[in-house]
Amino acid sequence: MRTRQVFRSVGRLADGREIVYFDESPDTGRAEVADRRPLPPFSTGSQLRYDPLLDEWVALAAHRQHRTFLPPPDECPLDPTRGERLSEIPAGDYDVVVFENRFPSLAPAPADALPDAGGDPALAARPSAGRCEVVCFTSDHSASFSDLSPERARTVVEAWADRTAELGARPDVAHVYPFENRGIEIGVTLQHPHGQIYAYPFVPPRIAAMREAARKHRAATGANLFDTVVADERRAGRRIVAEGEHWTAFVPAAARWPYEIRLFPLRRVPTLADLDEAQRDELARDYLDLLRAFDGLFPQPDEGTDPPTPYISAWHQAPVGADGTPDSEFALHLQLFTLRRAPGKLKYLAGSESGMAAWINDVAPEDAADRIRAALPAVAARPTENKEQR
Amino acid sequence: MRTRQVFRSVGRLADGREIVYFDESPDTGRAEVADRRPLPPFSTGSQLRYDPLLDEWVALAAHRQHRTFLPPPDECPLDPTRGERLSEIPAGDYDVVVFENRFPSLAPAPADALPDAGGDPALAARPSAGRCEVVCFTSDHSASFSDLSPERARTVVEAWADRTAELGARPDVAHVYPFENRGIEIGVTLQHPHGQIYAYPFVPPRIAAMREAARKHRAATGANLFDTVVADERRAGRRIVAEGEHWTAFVPAAARWPYEIRLFPLRRVPTLADLDEAQRDELARDYLDLLRAFDGLFPQPDEGTDPPTPYISAWHQAPVGADGTPDSEFALHLQLFTLRRAPGKLKYLAGSESGMAAWINDVAPEDAADRIRAALPAVAARPTENKEQR
Repeated sequence: MRTRQVFRSVGRLADGREIVYFDESPDTGRAEVADRRPLPPFSTGSQLRYDPLLDEWVALAAHRQHRTFLPPPDECPLDPTRGERLSEIPAGDYDVVVFENRFPSLAPAPADALPDAGGDPALAARPSAGRCEVVCFTSDHSASFSDLSPERARTVVEAWADRTAELGARPDVAHVYPFENRGIEIGVTLQHPHGQIYAYPFVPPRIAAMREAARKHRAATGANLFDTVVADERRAGRRIVAEGEHWTAFVPAAARWPYEIRLFPLRRVPTLADLDEAQRDELARDYLDLLRAFDGLFPQPDEGTDPPTPYISAWHQAPVGADGTPDSEFALHLQLFTLRRAPGKLKYLAGSESGMAAWINDVAPEDAADRIRAALPAVAARPTENKEQR
Repeated sequence: MRTRQVFRSVGRLADGREIVYFDESPDTGRAEVADRRPLPPFSTGSQLRYDPLLDEWVALAAHRQHRTFLPPPDECPLDPTRGERLSEIPAGDYDVVVFENRFPSLAPAPADALPDAGGDPALAARPSAGRCEVVCFTSDHSASFSDLSPERARTVVEAWADRTAELGARPDVAHVYPFENRGIEIGVTLQHPHGQIYAYPFVPPRIAAMREAARKHRAATGANLFDTVVADERRAGRRIVAEGEHWTAFVPAAARWPYEIRLFPLRRVPTLADLDEAQRDELARDYLDLLRAFDGLFPQPDEGTDPPTPYISAWHQAPVGADGTPDSEFALHLQLFTLRRAPGKLKYLAGSESGMAAWINDVAPEDAADRIRAALPAVAARPTENKEQR
């Protein structure tokens, strides 16, 4: 695949929020289309509260109780604007478009919006910072990411990399997290397919735990933890589900979820913005393959049972320092997982997981790897690649 | 309430599992009633797998895929045995009864049940240990814990304390965790009300994080972290929902869940087994009040909307050393929370929580405290107590 050019343009929504179009052809003029909605100025903020018992920050975003909840299809805010049906996207069509979330979990708040902590010694709170963005990758309301062409998926990769670099450079951002929730079983409140980006003002606990584990491993062995884990999984082989020239995907030996994949570039980089062209090109194809395998794990909707496999797709990136430099010891990777454990049955986070953060998995990772491999699109369908499927 | 005597007797189920009856009257003979089911010997085990990226253990219990799932009421395994309807409880009735879970997440496995790790450098696995128990507290299939009499709740407290002491003394147990999942929204697979006890062979991540935070706080301030947190919340006052002579309940300032309570004894103890009689007596009454307040947070089933408030009730106890001694720096407390954020709407653990372990809460803790206080049973209904409800 040749290096493709993506055309980026920036506009503003009626309430002042930023919108960034990533177009596959030049001069679309989309960013210049005015948002005709009579929106009040965007002034939502959230706050961070400190939990001393767990030494963690929690975001409090009370305004989200009133967010848009499963709107009817003819009021979808993620469709492009069509005639007088005004949406979050003023343009009449789009390839990939990213904009600030109207109901953000993380957004700067004025200091005077904090509760008065004068008489409240338990209240360690600070205004939030950071930013939440929505990523739309198809104007087709009923499509899925797995329906995208490789070219469109490649444009999404470019958008992820762009947002990672731009948001990571902000002084109030410690970690940039592109992700997608798919399926009402995991609480999706808008049915139009979309991803999200959270730019956290703190290092999220999972990333902090990995960073600490990597620090200990380096001190004990002199090696990078992520390199060790990837090398060990490749040497073992039996949980590898797909491997190309630049990426490898495996079910982790200690998977927490019924079907869970970690996808690593073979050449370690800290963030999506650090991937080279060849890595980005292959990623677009590999990611589509993995999503299609997930769709194939269970009987499909037209076979009369469940809705499509719900999943969470979670990019793990290096935390960034105050100067915007990512931690070079951290390895970019994707965690892709579903909470469906069998047709009609979900893995719930109940007493052990939600109460104690101790995971119980009912599906052996080796069996999960077998099933994912079997559900992958046939190699023959991807003639340009010498992918080995074990 | 005078000190009540509980009569304890131990039996065996047909497959060798232990069953312990806690009766409110002597000489029931329940433990001698034979289990007439033709069960094969109990041989289920699980394994623990180590995740190097997070420095955590995950339990793999593949046999649980085939556990009993929402059986019809006339096949309920937690009803007492009635005539030829044989259940997990051989006796014809019970007050409180605890037995080993037939489909345990944690159970010793023979070493040869482990996958061959010879060629698999990624596979750090060990046989599980520990134990999972089921706690039945009413033979009424359609009741809830909140329907129990104070006397019955007091018997449950005795059973929790008994199991904590006995399981904590086992060399393969590092933490004893009594909990209850209520509601199909959180994945309950048996509708008969019941609690559970997990005796973990490792310190669960949430307890480990609290222990580490307490260590740092002691080093920095010389004080116990839990004492500081409870004192700060009592001084602030505005998130206290109930306070008696021996216990205090508050919504934490950094609550993760829409409605969440932490209940602490005013005199710090490491485990339920260390509570004195007065603490146990008041706990039984306070706990019922809190559960009833949770039931009152949302319109009830007969008002035509949702099923009763789903909740997770999670006892946080001190980890125990190899000699069975609990960590005296850790403070016993209960975390009680619901994932319902509004009628018909749940708080889902999606991208931020499940992917990054970063919690977003949509309900201000101060508002949650107001609503819980308003839903508490009236003080007048508890004339024996001088509880102050702020």
